[in-house]
Amino acid sequence: MKRIVFPRQDHRRKEILNAAQRCFVRSGFHQTSMQEICAEAQMSAGNLYRYFPSKETIIAGITERDRAEVVQDFTRTDLSQELFAALEAMARHYFTVRSIEQVSLCTEIMSEARHNPEVARISAVFEVEIRKWLTSGFDMAAKRGDISKDADIEGAVNMLMIIADGFWWRRVLDPQFKVNSFISTFVDVARHLLRSQVSSEIAGGHS
Amino acid sequence: MKRIVFPRQDHRRKEILNAAQRCFVRSGFHQTSMQEICAEAQMSAGNLYRYFPSKETIIAGITERDRAEVVQDFTRTDLSQELFAALEAMARHYFTVRSIEQVSLCTEIMSEARHNPEVARISAVFEVEIRKWLTSGFDMAAKRGDISKDADIEGAVNMLMIIADGFWWRRVLDPQFKVNSFISTFVDVARHLLRSQVSSEIAGGHS
Repeated sequence: MKRIVFPRQDHRRKEILNAAQRCFVRSGFHQTSMQEICAEAQMSAGNLYRYFPSKETIIAGITERDRAEVVQDFTRTDLSQELFAALEAMARHYFTVRSIEQVSLCTEIMSEARHNPEVARISAVFEVEIRKWLTSGFDMAAKRGDISKDADIEGAVNMLMIIADGFWWRRVLDPQFKVNSFISTFVDVARHLLRSQVSSEIAGGHS
Repeated sequence: MKRIVFPRQDHRRKEILNAAQRCFVRSGFHQTSMQEICAEAQMSAGNLYRYFPSKETIIAGITERDRAEVVQDFTRTDLSQELFAALEAMARHYFTVRSIEQVSLCTEIMSEARHNPEVARISAVFEVEIRKWLTSGFDMAAKRGDISKDADIEGAVNMLMIIADGFWWRRVLDPQFKVNSFISTFVDVARHLLRSQVSSEIAGGHS
């Protein structure tokens, strides 16, 4: 799996990030020591510190890389086709193909963002990207007529992102969790949110 | 706010948990030392250790207390009235009245459940309670005719709990997050999920 096109320095950095990621997923950022990362990377402390001067820089490196992968996963999806078919394919990919290691890392990053300004900053940049990409996809779909012209796109984007966040935690904390039935409910909710707000209020409204 | 009906021992335990909770919310479970908790509780280490032999027992104590409060909040809601009015009142209470300290604690407990079996156990017991309570409320509502008789109650309960989990993280990580518009979308999604699955498939289904 090693890509020899990488310069040696980049390749070493990548190996260290991979080793650190395995440690972090097992034990969490704060319960992992630099010694453990060195052992996992089979590298001396002196050598490792030449690439990353502190655990914080490793955490930031891993966050940056993981968030970039997620953005890439998203933007690879072609939203110029019928929206809900694309959304379902994306949900299926995003919610099932990511390994439990990647999902655990994602929750670890969310926890870390509460206390670590650099991780919070990287996460916020990533959020803006995803939000922009979803919004422009939904705008195009509204123009094509896949969704209602008066759908509350901002509200829908917010809710779908909240559901995705909740999903990572559920998948990590609940071994019984059924991903497949979740995905169909997710797409069903997306369909509902992107239909006209007006018509859904009329349809729902006997309270 | 001190309740003198508590025996002295319980009162001291409660004070320690309150002090530890403030530390944990500020810095996280693992970045807080027993010394900091002693300082916050204005108590010597020797004295504090008589109540809690380790940081782990404090974390478990706080988790137990917080989860019990949430269950109490839930079960206090009367679900024998019209369902969506009750659900909206509950969402408004649960999502707005809980302080940012309580919300932060909730995310800290979720993080901790990933690595700490005792916290995972307490959280799982709590989940079962909430799930049972929601399911029986929705069953009653189906009998009364507030919701469709063939609604997928299990799927709806799962999705609503996932949304609540995502909400805590959003509220903690995004200072711009608008709670009020979230609540109306939450109730709208609940309405949609609890209507007939059959009719929503027909309504949505041109993909």
